This record gives sequence, C-alpha cells and structure tokens, in this order.
Amino acid sequence: MLIKGKQYRTIWLSSDKKHVEIIDQRFLPHKFIIEKIYSVKEMAAAIKDMHLRGAPLIGAAAGYGIYLAVLEAKDRADYNSHILQSAKLLESTRPTAVNLKWALKRQLSGLEQTESIDDKIEVSLKIAGDIADEDADICKNIGLHGVKLIEELSRLKRGKPVNILTHCNAGALATVDHGTATSPIYEAKKRNIPIHVWVDETRPRNQGKLTSWELEQENISNTVICDNTGGHLMQNGMVDIVFVGTDRTTANGDVANKIGTYLKALAAVDNNIPFYVALPSSTIDWNMLNGKSIPIEERSEDEVLYIEGLCDGELKEVGLFSKNAKALNYGFDVTPARLITGLITERGICKPSELKQMFGMFIA
Amino acid sequence: MLIKGKQYRTIWLSSDKKHVEIIDQRFLPHKFIIEKIYSVKEMAAAIKDMHLRGAPLIGAAAGYGIYLAVLEAKDRADYNSHILQSAKLLESTRPTAVNLKWALKRQLSGLEQTESIDDKIEVSLKIAGDIADEDADICKNIGLHGVKLIEELSRLKRGKPVNILTHCNAGALATVDHGTATSPIYEAKKRNIPIHVWVDETRPRNQGKLTSWELEQENISNTVICDNTGGHLMQNGMVDIVFVGTDRTTANGDVANKIGTYLKALAAVDNNIPFYVALPSSTIDWNMLNGKSIPIEERSEDEVLYIEGLCDGELKEVGLFSKNAKALNYGFDVTPARLITGLITERGICKPSELKQMFGMFIA
Repeated sequence: MLIKGKQYRTIWLSSDKKHVEIIDQRFLPHKFIIEKIYSVKEMAAAIKDMHLRGAPLIGAAAGYGIYLAVLEAKDRADYNSHILQSAKLLESTRPTAVNLKWALKRQLSGLEQTESIDDKIEVSLKIAGDIADEDADICKNIGLHGVKLIEELSRLKRGKPVNILTHCNAGALATVDHGTATSPIYEAKKRNIPIHVWVDETRPRNQGKLTSWELEQENISNTVICDNTGGHLMQNGMVDIVFVGTDRTTANGDVANKIGTYLKALAAVDNNIPFYVALPSSTIDWNMLNGKSIPIEERSEDEVLYIEGLCDGELKEVGLFSKNAKALNYGFDVTPARLITGLITERGICKPSELKQMFGMFIA
Repeated sequence: MLIKGKQYRTIWLSSDKKHVEIIDQRFLPHKFIIEKIYSVKEMAAAIKDMHLRGAPLIGAAAGYGIYLAVLEAKDRADYNSHILQSAKLLESTRPTAVNLKWALKRQLSGLEQTESIDDKIEVSLKIAGDIADEDADICKNIGLHGVKLIEELSRLKRGKPVNILTHCNAGALATVDHGTATSPIYEAKKRNIPIHVWVDETRPRNQGKLTSWELEQENISNTVICDNTGGHLMQNGMVDIVFVGTDRTTANGDVANKIGTYLKALAAVDNNIPFYVALPSSTIDWNMLNGKSIPIEERSEDEVLYIEGLCDGELKEVGLFSKNAKALNYGFDVTPARLITGLITERGICKPSELKQMFGMFIA
C-alpha cells in the first residue's frame, strides 16, 4: 500500500527484529502515526483498543504477538508457560475474530515441535512472517482475479471510467496489504484502467474515511457518499459494479458484512448492476449452512449517538442526538446468496452456489 | 405539537402581524430557539439555509414570505414588481419541493384580483393563514386515515407494540403541525395503541435527530438507528410497517423523498413489510407523469464531509474525512410506485395507481 508515496504494510517487523511496527489506525485519516510495539501486552492492547482492525490483519497481529512473547520468554525459566499465557491474553482481545484463533493455533502448533528457546524464536519469527506474507499473497490474488471484471466493463464502456461502489473498509488497512474488495481496484490502477470509486461513508464508525484515504494515497479518483446515496446513483447509471468484503461467508454463499451491505445488494439487483463479494477463503465458514445462523454483533449505542472528527486541528467527539435519545447498533447484516452476482476468492471468481465446488468441498 | 409540554406550531404570525416567528430547526435537538423574521429576504434565507425545512412547511413559509413582501411594498410605487421579484426570490430557494411553487402561485393568483396595497395586505395575510391552517388540517386528516393501519397491526399483534420505521423527518417540524408520516403515530399515541418507532438517522443532515426529539417530546418510545440498519431489522421481523413522507409525488404514484427512502422501500418489499407514503395532496405534481423527470437537488459536499454536534455544551462542527476528500450529496431519491404499498392522503388511503381516481383527476 502506498502512503505518502512510500510502500507500507499495515504491520511489519523492525529491522533489528526486536519489535513490531503498525499503522495506528485510530487517528486516520487525520493523522498518520506509526506505533512501535515492544511486548505481547502492548500488542494485545493494540488489538483490543483497535489501533488496528480487520479480521486478516488481526490474525497477522496475533502471529507477531506470539513472536514478541517468545522474545520476552528468552530469559525466563518458565518460557513455555509465558508463551501459553500470552496466547490466552491475545485470544481474549477480540473473542469473535476467527483469524485470531487460527493464527494463535498455528503459532502454538509450530512451537510445540521445538525445544530450545532459540529454536522457538526462529520458528515463531518464521510463522509470523508466513502468516503476514500469505495474507498479502491471498489479497493480491483476489485482485488479479477481480480486475478482470473491471477490464471487461472498461471495454464495454470504451475506456470511460468504470464506476465502482464499495461499502466499509475492505481495504489494505483491514489486511496486511492490498485489501480484499480494494485489491481489484489497486490492480486496475496499476494497469492504467480508468476507474472512479464511490466510497460509502459506512455509519456508524465511518470506515469510509479509511477507504477514501487509502484510495487518495494511491491517487485513485474517489468520492465519498452517504450510505443513503448508492441506490439513487444506481438508478441513474452512475454505478457499474459493486465490490464489498465479508466477515463471514456460509457454505451456501450467504455473506455477513458490515451493516448496510444488504441494502446495496438489493439496489444492485433492482438496477441490474453486478454485485461482487471479495473474500479470502479463511472467512468461509463451511460448518454453517446459511447466513441465518450467523451471530450478529450488537455494539455500543454510543457509536451511533456520538461521532469523532477533526475540529481546529484536534480530534473531538460530538453528540448528534438529544441527550435522552437511545440507539441500536448492529455491526453486520446478512446478504443472501440470491442477491450476489459472484464471489471473488484467491482461487478465482464463482457464483455463490459454486463455492463448495471451487474449494473441492462436497458436503452432503 | 407538544414541546416541553406546550402546544406549538412551526410557524406563526406575531400578535401585531408585523413579523413571522419560526422554530429555528438548525439548533434542534440541542437548543430550542425561536427566530423572528421581519422581511421576505430573511424568509428566503431561512428557507434556503434550512432554518426550517420539510415540503409542507416550506409552502407555509413561502405563503408568509409573500405576506412580508406585500408589507414591505406598502410604501413603494412599484409594489407589484417588488411582490413578483420576491416570489422569484422565494422560488429560487429550494428546487425539489413542489409546495413552494404551489404556495407562491396561490398567493400571486389571489393578489392579482386586488388593486390597492391595503387590499393586497389583507388578502395575502388571509391566504398565508389559510395555507398554514389547511396544512395543519390536512396533516391531522392524514393521521386519522393512517392510524387505521396501526390499529389493524395492533390487533394482529394482540396489543404488542407495533414497530414503525420512518426515514428523515416527515414530522410536525416538517409541516405546520402533526407532520405527515408522524401524524398516524401521534394519533396512535392519543388512542393508547402501544407503538415503538425506529428512527433512521438520515445522513447527511441527520434529520432523524428532529424526529427522535419530536417523539421524545410526545413521550413516544423510539430508537435511533443508522441508515444502514433498517434492512437488517426488516429481515429479522423487527419492523411491522414503514411510514415516510414525500417532497413530490408524480401522477403515476412515484415518490421523491429524502435520499435513502428508495433503499428502505426495496428492503420492505423484499421482506413483505407494508411501505406507506404519507402526503398532503399539495405535494402531488399532476403534470409530471413519472418520477424520472423530478429534478433532484444536489447540495454542498460539506454536509457530508463535516457534521455538527454538541461538544462540552457547545455546537461544534467536526471534519469526518481526509482534508482532501470529495463528496457528492444528492438530497432526494425516487421510489418507484411499484415498491409502495399505499399512499396516505388527507382524503384516504389508496394504491399509487389509484391516486388519480382518488382526486378525481382523469388525465388522458
């Protein structure tokens, strides 16, 4: 990902391999701050307090968190116990994030096969790096498949800009690099395909501000719109394709994603606009038959009632409603497979109904 | 409308008939401020800068605006020219609301039949008052018809609260009194029918804060939700009926209303939930065959990029996006008649296709 003209990942190891650095996303897009993380405790706090977010990135952060724990254990007799306790600490930060558990399990399995602390340091460093590299590769591949859709539309539009709508931030900032829904967009930019992106604000947490900032850094033409606006744009021929990410996809191709995704899918279908979901296969829940069983996180009403922004150079929170107002704040909704044109995975693009086949899962 | 236990209209004539008073809605729900308006120029600014808003109220404000223009013309030789110029000024304030033109036409037609300036003062005063009184009556009647839908749902739910979703503020604050979409709600409250209202935030201007505040003043149970949330609630049986207002309804029953209305109509249809539009017949544009011709107001991008709220007891504006971000801000969208269960007018409830019949308009 390009930031101020320089290539970044969202998380990386320091050159002396003694600490980890992350982009502290709490201050974006207003301030670009790099945080240095020296201990597993600091990493746990960074995950819990959302210095970083996005399921794939949380997985990578947990991987590096274990590496820091192993480093700390070097001079301790009870190093195994410290590593296990650290894994528990990391696991407790975001109990719903599947990638977190998966990354911790992968680190602990690897460490089990080593004896000396020096071996453990080497192995955990390798696994943390692999998790991050693999995530970047998977996202890159999503882009290589998804860009074909943009290329085809560009041909049909005879080179006029392809208008892409996206919801939330399924961008590089939610992953190690490239993003999921944004990866085809970045790939299109590389290939000099004229594009323009409509960025849904995505209330209540306004992750559109991250997407818009990411695209700005890559010099990709983009316009922020309120979540209410996409339907009107679609009715008026101003959207050619929709790309969104997902937090969980069930075996039948139903997709849980940021609240409001379902409304955009309805509008896309009503206006005959292709609606694609970009997903690393790690977000597929093969054990869940359909989206009705996906638990939907209810978050604090304060995320709706208050909002943070820049005022005279300082970040300030303002109250939007009557002081007596109550709000309800669901984090996600489920878009049924019937509304989805296709799923873009690291292996290729398929219809929701073809997902099992693509991954060779023939569940009875 | 009840505010702090006292009955109010949104607009009224001062007791000496020399100026007009309005509730300045820019500061609600944080501060309740009454503004005194002494000239047609001030009234035009109040409409344009949204000290007041809502199609019916804009109509009433335009009516009183002409009265103020006539008062100003009293000592001028070119009084007719001043009145006509004032009408043009008022007309230029908001392009989408059909009531504005309708009220101006009604005033100008009445004034054409008078000669002396004293007659004109008397006539324009009468017409302005009539427009306001009629609007209040019309809204009251919308409530009397619409409440039957709530009564029926209450019966079906055996007295469990009827969950009503509404978008924007089609409340008393958008009219002279009672509101359009809220009028059946206020009537239900009077009849002690258990109800609960889901209030769409309605970005970018967050008119949901007005609706929520209005309902709070009338002691009606309500919960604010982000515009993204309604679809999920509908999928999960948490919405029984949708009531929205309209800025313009075309002869075929297509409805222009606050941006995002179309998305809620799609979700209502997808979940088999009745979707009703409440409208005074003054918002019907019989000359427009369908909604495709309705001009859609594009407003400043700053309404999206910045938001105002209360911070340490003061109203402050905060920037939500990167300082380089661009936004597009359409005020309205069009909900096609095919998605609308029924229209609630002052004469009764009908299907969109029956609108002409209800008003005895048999246009070839």
